[in-house]
Amino acid sequence: MASDSRTNAGVDHIATFCKMAVFEHPGQAVITLLSAGNLATTQSTISLLRQRIQGDGEHIFNQRSLYDVAVLVGSTLREVVERDSPKMPRQDGVDFGSSFLLGGQIKGEEVRLFNIYPQGNFIEASSETPYFQIGESKYGKPILDRVIRFETSLSEASKCVLISFDSTIKSNVSVGLPIDLMRYRKDSLVLREKYRVEESDPYFKEIRQAWSAGLRRTFESIPDPDWV
Amino acid sequence: MASDSRTNAGVDHIATFCKMAVFEHPGQAVITLLSAGNLATTQSTISLLRQRIQGDGEHIFNQRSLYDVAVLVGSTLREVVERDSPKMPRQDGVDFGSSFLLGGQIKGEEVRLFNIYPQGNFIEASSETPYFQIGESKYGKPILDRVIRFETSLSEASKCVLISFDSTIKSNVSVGLPIDLMRYRKDSLVLREKYRVEESDPYFKEIRQAWSAGLRRTFESIPDPDWV
Repeated sequence: MASDSRTNAGVDHIATFCKMAVFEHPGQAVITLLSAGNLATTQSTISLLRQRIQGDGEHIFNQRSLYDVAVLVGSTLREVVERDSPKMPRQDGVDFGSSFLLGGQIKGEEVRLFNIYPQGNFIEASSETPYFQIGESKYGKPILDRVIRFETSLSEASKCVLISFDSTIKSNVSVGLPIDLMRYRKDSLVLREKYRVEESDPYFKEIRQAWSAGLRRTFESIPDPDWV
Repeated sequence: MASDSRTNAGVDHIATFCKMAVFEHPGQAVITLLSAGNLATTQSTISLLRQRIQGDGEHIFNQRSLYDVAVLVGSTLREVVERDSPKMPRQDGVDFGSSFLLGGQIKGEEVRLFNIYPQGNFIEASSETPYFQIGESKYGKPILDRVIRFETSLSEASKCVLISFDSTIKSNVSVGLPIDLMRYRKDSLVLREKYRVEESDPYFKEIRQAWSAGLRRTFESIPDPDWV
């Protein structure tokens, strides 16, 4: 799972916030949430989910399945939106809506991935639709569509997601470095691999240059139309 | 200038319409309009622009400059939207908005290119921002950003725009073949090159295959991350 960290509320309010929240209960559950949309809403949702782990009620680590966690995240999201925007979803032109990607594994289950909509309902990934995007997703989608399959290895997928972010960053100022990337190994039930890709990251630099040069080379290798 | 020809009003109403309208007055003016958005609005705007050429009033061929043509198209667009949607721009969730790209040359002027917004106002391209897109533009933007410069040749630009459409078509069902493509040679004041690229077009097929293979090759040539 990967997220950029640019947030903006107009060009005067551009800031860097991590949009990835990892909930780890070693040996029991590794759960990651990526967020998009209204930052106040997503931060509040994450804060409530974290705060309630200490409490006696329902929380992210006492659910039976990742499906039930998705229900919990959805209802917490609705709770925040209803609290902050009585006339939801729009008030004075402010959109309180947010969406989440929820991925991970709970002991006894397979690895699962959910896309939680601003309404709090959600869909689950499948072998036919093995990836989800939220937020500013269109610029980076073509390369994902060409490469990502259910069988794609973790290494190839990591490479592909960084190329996808590079394309988006080049074409849209609302997406920016650093990129947070986490990789989870099936059945490990522990988080070992979490990276932050900064501007100076040598591998990201290499990808950017090689991809740009490769596209250029491919472009030049295609003959011009013979219509002239 | 290039346009796809897929229109849709929900998945039950998908149809093929040419979104390119060429107004040619040989030796005097070649003016092309590409349209995006509500088809009823764009068709009506084009119909009124055509119909009025026969009349005594202001029309597309009696303007002093392409700037004045942009003003005329903008005001005709506003006229249609105001006629069809008293509570513009939204009524029962229907968006009557449309936008246009206006490009061409009027005798005595340089070639010019304008982007006309749904509000009827517009901006003009410059050497720093030499291209515009309207409609479902994000998927195909990264390759344009990498290739298109003010100096880019007509042949390279044609190739690039077809690759851009290919990426968009692969990722989004609201964009589809055929692609209408017109090329205008500076100071010719006559339209010589207009093509329709269909599914069976051998050059488009070649581009699709070569681009796909080239991306794949480039992707594979980049080493996997060494984080594993």
